[in-house]
Amino acid sequence: MSEKSLSLADLAALVEGEIVGDGGVMITGFAPLETAERGDISFLVKAGLADSLAAFKGSAVIVPMAVEEAPVPLIRVKDPYLASASIHTLLLKKIFLAKGVHERAWVGKDTSIPQEITIAPLASVGERVKLGERVTIESGVVVGDDVEIGDDTILKANVTVGDGCIIGKKVILHSGTVIGSDGYGYATDSRGFHVKRPQVGIVRIDDDVEIGANCCVDRAAYGVTWIKSGTKIDNLVQVGHNVVVGENSLIVAQVGIAGSTILGRNVVLGGQVGLAGHIELGNGVMVAAQSGVHNDQKDGARIGGSPAIPIKQFVRAATQFGKLAEMGRDLKKVKKAVAELTSQERQIVPGEKND
Amino acid sequence: MSEKSLSLADLAALVEGEIVGDGGVMITGFAPLETAERGDISFLVKAGLADSLAAFKGSAVIVPMAVEEAPVPLIRVKDPYLASASIHTLLLKKIFLAKGVHERAWVGKDTSIPQEITIAPLASVGERVKLGERVTIESGVVVGDDVEIGDDTILKANVTVGDGCIIGKKVILHSGTVIGSDGYGYATDSRGFHVKRPQVGIVRIDDDVEIGANCCVDRAAYGVTWIKSGTKIDNLVQVGHNVVVGENSLIVAQVGIAGSTILGRNVVLGGQVGLAGHIELGNGVMVAAQSGVHNDQKDGARIGGSPAIPIKQFVRAATQFGKLAEMGRDLKKVKKAVAELTSQERQIVPGEKND
Amino acid sequence: MSEKSLSLADLAALVEGEIVGDGGVMITGFAPLETAERGDISFLVKAGLADSLAAFKGSAVIVPMAVEEAPVPLIRVKDPYLASASIHTLLLKKIFLAKGVHERAWVGKDTSIPQEITIAPLASVGERVKLGERVTIESGVVVGDDVEIGDDTILKANVTVGDGCIIGKKVILHSGTVIGSDGYGYATDSRGFHVKRPQVGIVRIDDDVEIGANCCVDRAAYGVTWIKSGTKIDNLVQVGHNVVVGENSLIVAQVGIAGSTILGRNVVLGGQVGLAGHIELGNGVMVAAQSGVHNDQKDGARIGGSPAIPIKQFVRAATQFGKLAEMGRDLKKVKKAVAELTSQERQIVPGEKND
Repeated sequence: MSEKSLSLADLAALVEGEIVGDGGVMITGFAPLETAERGDISFLVKAGLADSLAAFKGSAVIVPMAVEEAPVPLIRVKDPYLASASIHTLLLKKIFLAKGVHERAWVGKDTSIPQEITIAPLASVGERVKLGERVTIESGVVVGDDVEIGDDTILKANVTVGDGCIIGKKVILHSGTVIGSDGYGYATDSRGFHVKRPQVGIVRIDDDVEIGANCCVDRAAYGVTWIKSGTKIDNLVQVGHNVVVGENSLIVAQVGIAGSTILGRNVVLGGQVGLAGHIELGNGVMVAAQSGVHNDQKDGARIGGSPAIPIKQFVRAATQFGKLAEMGRDLKKVKKAVAELTSQERQIVPGEKND
Repeated sequence: MSEKSLSLADLAALVEGEIVGDGGVMITGFAPLETAERGDISFLVKAGLADSLAAFKGSAVIVPMAVEEAPVPLIRVKDPYLASASIHTLLLKKIFLAKGVHERAWVGKDTSIPQEITIAPLASVGERVKLGERVTIESGVVVGDDVEIGDDTILKANVTVGDGCIIGKKVILHSGTVIGSDGYGYATDSRGFHVKRPQVGIVRIDDDVEIGANCCVDRAAYGVTWIKSGTKIDNLVQVGHNVVVGENSLIVAQVGIAGSTILGRNVVLGGQVGLAGHIELGNGVMVAAQSGVHNDQKDGARIGGSPAIPIKQFVRAATQFGKLAEMGRDLKKVKKAVAELTSQERQIVPGEKND
Repeated sequence: MSEKSLSLADLAALVEGEIVGDGGVMITGFAPLETAERGDISFLVKAGLADSLAAFKGSAVIVPMAVEEAPVPLIRVKDPYLASASIHTLLLKKIFLAKGVHERAWVGKDTSIPQEITIAPLASVGERVKLGERVTIESGVVVGDDVEIGDDTILKANVTVGDGCIIGKKVILHSGTVIGSDGYGYATDSRGFHVKRPQVGIVRIDDDVEIGANCCVDRAAYGVTWIKSGTKIDNLVQVGHNVVVGENSLIVAQVGIAGSTILGRNVVLGGQVGLAGHIELGNGVMVAAQSGVHNDQKDGARIGGSPAIPIKQFVRAATQFGKLAEMGRDLKKVKKAVAELTSQERQIVPGEKND
């Protein structure tokens, strides 16, 4: 797919790696070990599997420091998984090809078009929108009025961004995701009717955030719902109004975060986790998949279960859970035996009081 | 945001509140206590925080009856949270601005266009659609054939409404929501192949319903899937075929309701709840977040857990859950101790039978 | 809805059924027992309810073999539920009506248009796309570049199919579903920043697959994410990168499958189930709703709970769960009683050692 050609030495420099073999070998692509062909670079995570390199058909391999030599040119690094991500990205990187505003796209008045932009057929951009350089807006995208979008951001097909929302630079929003839908807020009257509370805030998404497909990030009731820089969100995630997600957090698929909850930086939420509203999770909190969190959590807490408890305690309890029916039976038997023993005791222990 | 200007007395009348201070003060906006400026009205829920009004910079505050005076004009009401929703809504209310059918929208044949309507660029409306007055259809919306949409309803960007569905008045459907996708119904043959059961019913959504972003409401196999008036649904909710949701229910994000299940009115389902198919929940049933319900529930039942049990019982059990490993250990020890006691007992209790 | 007219004898032949009564009666529609009118065929699943046929107003009924006669013409079959699906489908089947490419649709260059096709207004099809015969692409659909779509496949409104994905024949993708969004893959550096791993694979969907509304199927990191033939997926389901779902599986709403997990054929996943990544479920595995699966599962395993255990064990444990608080109290009492007994024992048992 890549049209680039870079020397192994250039790639090694990018990741501060050490070359073994010919640094002048030219690399044009990236592939897994098994399918690599001439010109491809691959990566090996486990040093113990280095023997497999004998059958390798590509041109070079990124390996951990523990691998010292092999029948192919190597880049030795501390973290081959990380280095391979950087190298693959570089190999794929293309100069932005501005296609301009397609005649079948719609752009509202007072939206200024930057020099380099791609707005695809059947995309719709509202009025007074501020578009950064090298923004890509695919088909079916709807951008509301008064939105701001930073440089190099990509809105994939069928994304919706509501009025007034602010999207940073190098953000990727995947297809079907909705930014800036109304928060879920009602006041219930004495007859049980729900009166809608106007949702007049916005969503702010900072630089380098990636949000998966078919997610929802609701606009704040007032103020902002805020996804801070570097955070990566998987598909089908729900972020309620006035939520703040700290920098570089990871939120796996189908998580739901209720309104006004605050997450620190580098928080990790496993798939299908639910967070109650109005709670605070400190920096580096990790929550196991399918857990439900109802309380504030300190920095670095590792929790699991619904309601969530410390993860070690959860794992032990969950392991025991399967024996619960057996425990119930045992407990009954023991109760009975103790009752019998106690009554016999009373008969034989001298001076026991009758209660 | 508001261009309106209303006297404090007018607003008090709307919510049957009691004015303290100058009823003639003019209100033009609504803001939280901390950010209110001149012309803004705010609200205070807890009387105990009334001292904070000394620093208030807005023009008036909605307060609970327990607050009798303050350094700013007041509206005293029973429920400030509710009253503020009504007042904020009134201040934001605009006269419907009909933009007509945009030349870049598509409208099928035999769809009659009412006097006042907005159909945005790149929206698509099918054939024989009946559109109410003051309907708003945003960009990217797709309305199928033979759909009916009531007055004052809003379809946000990228909503889909399938053929034949009926949407009431003052309904709001948020972006990405799909009304009238096929229900999930198959008959499996002896070889394990699944034969699709045609889904020939519709979805009916009554007046004043609001449905969040990226929800799915499946059409009935036959007949209707029915969301009754006043019900409010959050984002990413799944409503299966032939489900009936009663009036004024609240369904929080990521809930799933399986086919043919019937909900009464004013039911509340917490986030990520799952309801099995073919069950019935009475009026006012409340289900805690992440619960799974497999059985019919009586009016007013409060339940939690998966499978769900009465909420108090669930909370007690869930609290105990964390001690399960410890309980297991204790039980083992007790069993051992009892076994020892029993064997000793046998040695010392006269006349004990050997079994 | 049907314009067809078929004899009862023709319908019986389709499902290898046995006619009781007049095989020449003409059938034009399908309806439930209660609402059937003249010309309609209905079905009855439970022989015990055959008495209800006395009030039947339609023209014929599909019944189980146990029903031998009735006041209406019958088709007797082994499985009326299955037979009715086939008959209803036949009655609804229409000749494909090719509407061609609408002038308001967009089709990229080098995409060849087959003889019979429907591409609706405001649909967008990329470059070099291969379209089968009788494909339907509804409004709001976005098909990327280099996509392949097989004969008779339907993409409902607002579906997105990413570049390079391969969709088989007779596939149905419901509205809002996203095929080929990027997989969720990052490498984290020493400062906690997440470096995106390029996702350069595709999604392959085989013949006769149906996928519900607002689902996400991520493209592979390398290679393919693969949904095999005959599998039926409900709404709001997440399928991670490099997942393989075997033939004729059933995946109910809101399931999440993490990356690289492999499912056999005829697997059944209940609603809101979560599967961890990199595990393997054998053929015919059944997972109860809301369960979480972290380990490989053998062919035919039936499991439930989070983490999942054998279903019978789960049901027993879950039943006991509600008594957990009571068990805790009982265990405490028993512990106390045993402690007392033990200390008394020490006093009365001769020769007991002090430990």
